[in-house]
Parts: sequence; structure tokens; C-alpha cells
Amino acid sequence: MAKQGILIVLSGPSGAGKGTICQELLRSYPELNYSISATTRAPRTGEQNGVNYWFISLQEFQKMIKDDQLLEWAEVYGNFYGTPCHHIAVLLDSGKDVVLEIDTQGATQIKKKFPQGVCIYITPPSLDELAKRIHKRGTDSLENIKTRLSSASGELTYVNNYDYVVINDEVQSATKKIAAIIIAEKCQVIRNISTIESILSNAKKINF
Amino acid sequence: MAKQGILIVLSGPSGAGKGTICQELLRSYPELNYSISATTRAPRTGEQNGVNYWFISLQEFQKMIKDDQLLEWAEVYGNFYGTPCHHIAVLLDSGKDVVLEIDTQGATQIKKKFPQGVCIYITPPSLDELAKRIHKRGTDSLENIKTRLSSASGELTYVNNYDYVVINDEVQSATKKIAAIIIAEKCQVIRNISTIESILSNAKKINF
Repeated sequence: MAKQGILIVLSGPSGAGKGTICQELLRSYPELNYSISATTRAPRTGEQNGVNYWFISLQEFQKMIKDDQLLEWAEVYGNFYGTPCHHIAVLLDSGKDVVLEIDTQGATQIKKKFPQGVCIYITPPSLDELAKRIHKRGTDSLENIKTRLSSASGELTYVNNYDYVVINDEVQSATKKIAAIIIAEKCQVIRNISTIESILSNAKKINF
Repeated sequence: MAKQGILIVLSGPSGAGKGTICQELLRSYPELNYSISATTRAPRTGEQNGVNYWFISLQEFQKMIKDDQLLEWAEVYGNFYGTPCHHIAVLLDSGKDVVLEIDTQGATQIKKKFPQGVCIYITPPSLDELAKRIHKRGTDSLENIKTRLSSASGELTYVNNYDYVVINDEVQSATKKIAAIIIAEKCQVIRNISTIESILSNAKKINF
């Protein structure tokens, strides 16, 4: 049986840069697998089923909720978004690591349902810096920026529900830290019981 | 106040290669500090006080035990060896990381006295491989090799007292894993409370 893979949950407030870090992580470590979310919203131009999202009907989504087939889900502006368990379970069971990028509410749901998941909180180095980044993006009004900052500040208090915090002062550096976390998690004693047992059973064969 | 440094305890059975890995770690990451043990044994040719060991008298050693100034200690063939707390505490308080290479009994004492220390168990990939390595070294009789293997097999059952296990199949690869563990430990939420508080207090100043 392959050693179980690790579920890495990247989360944090909007504007912290988790999307960019997730892309950089998958680009630098192609052995990692991205968990594709399911959604009831219509595909946008260029979006492909099974690449950007699993595009499913409301009925299908509701059945997944009923059958407990979602690690987490949320309704956003009338559309449903969720993380299907099945695909992740198949990958983890075959020893593959899975990366998931999700908001803080979703991460909290996942940690409750799947405590062996590794939850990483990505934060900007300061809320001043977050304000600058959102402002630079130019897609938010001043009022929106204020709301986002207030929300980020509130969300940061939930960081204690996470395992790790990575300060995104620079994308490459933050990505390397996440890669280090994955390596370290793979070395945790708790994740190596079968390897240790195998070394010990090999010891019995030596017969000294 | 500087962020507290991390105490990294490298341990494992004799012949697992912890000494070589420790040297490689200190060579590759010169920002790490090596914890120098105290001993009552006489210096060998070329050994320097404060470099290889702190060479102290039996009276001084006994006083350190009495004053609880040793993280751990042991008597080996009539000589005393121990890890002085003071030097490590000064380094950790100034935010520096300290590496300590020690046998499994010493590591167990340290974990009890200083649970925030990061205990890494270094193991050979198999006991067959350990036998080959000790044999190749050519310093042990067949009887000694058998004793060492039996002892290593017994010690491996204590791996559950450790935080991480690193299989030393190749020195460079094992060293990189330990470096990753140090980076990951520095990202643990529990070690970043003051940083998070600082981001939040900065949020209060923004005054949205």
C-alpha cells in the first residue's frame, strides 16, 4: 500500500496572494496535484470542465451535500462552490499530495472534517501592505478596500485554527516555505509508522 | 525582543550517520549554531576548549548537575558528558537556532525538560544497511556489530518520543530534509503569535 499523500490547504484573506502562491507552487513542484472545485455557476469563456472547475447542476450539487461528498461548500452570490471528497481521496490513497486553495471559512470546515490536512494561513506582511496591493490591482473602490481590510483583520484572529502561517512578503520565498512545510510534514513520526515498522520487521529477519 | 530561536536535537542509533549529517548541516547553513557539550574527560590531542567540548573538572560538573544547569547528562566509562543550558538559552533568546547531536537517552531527557525543542530521529534506511555501514567502518568486531544492531533495533521503538524521523539514505538528501523541518517549524502558528499580534496591532493603526 502506498504511503498516504498529504492534503495541503492554502488559505488566508483575499488579497494575501494565495492564488499566485498556489500557481507558483504547482509550477515549481509538478508532482503536486491541484484539487478542482465543483460549482453550479456557468463556465466563463475559456474555462474547461475538469480543469478550472467541475461544472455541475444545482441538483447534482445538492445531492453531493446530502450524500456528504463535499469536504466543504459555500453559496456565493447565488452560486454554489464546493470541494468534492472523492477525487482527493483517490489521490491521497495513491500517495499523491493534493493542494487546495480556499477561503478561511472553507479551511475551517476542512480542518474539522479532515484534521490530518495541513492548513497554511497565508498573510500579507502587514495590513498596510495588503491595502497597497488591493489598491494597485485597481479593481476595488475605496469603500471595498476598507471592507476587505476590515475583513482581513477579523480573519487574522482565526489563524490559531491553522497549523502554519506563511507571511507572503515575496512569492518565491513564501512558495519555498510551503514546499519546506510539505517535506517536514512527510517526516513527521506520525506519518511514518509503517516505514518504522518495516525497518523493525527487517530487524527481526537479521536474527542476531 | 528577538523571536525565540529553535533548538534542533539530532539523535538516533549509533551508526545512523547523525554526526555526518550534523556536520553537513552546519557547513551548509552557517547561520546555525552548534551546542558544545561539557565533559570531565581530558582533551585529546588537537581538541580545544570551547570548540570540541567545554573541558571542566568533576567538581564543576557536579555543581552544574546540582544547580540544574544541564539539559541532560550521562556518565560513560567513568567520564561525565552533558549539555549546559546557559549557552543554549542565550543563543535561543537572541533568536539564533541551535543544533545538538546526542544519543537517544539524552534526547529523551531534553524532550522532557524542554518540550519546545524539535527532536529529529535519524535512522538508517534498514538495519541491514546499518550493519553494512558499521562493518565498512572496520572499527567494530562482529560481536560489537551484533550488539550495536540489537541496540539500534531496541532504540527504534522509542521513535514515538520524537517529532520527526529522517531516513538517512543519502547525507545531502537527509540534510535538506532537516533544513526543511527547521523552516517549517519557524512557520508554525504557535511560534508566530507575536508576529500575528504585530500585524493586528498595525491594523488598529490603519483606523478604517
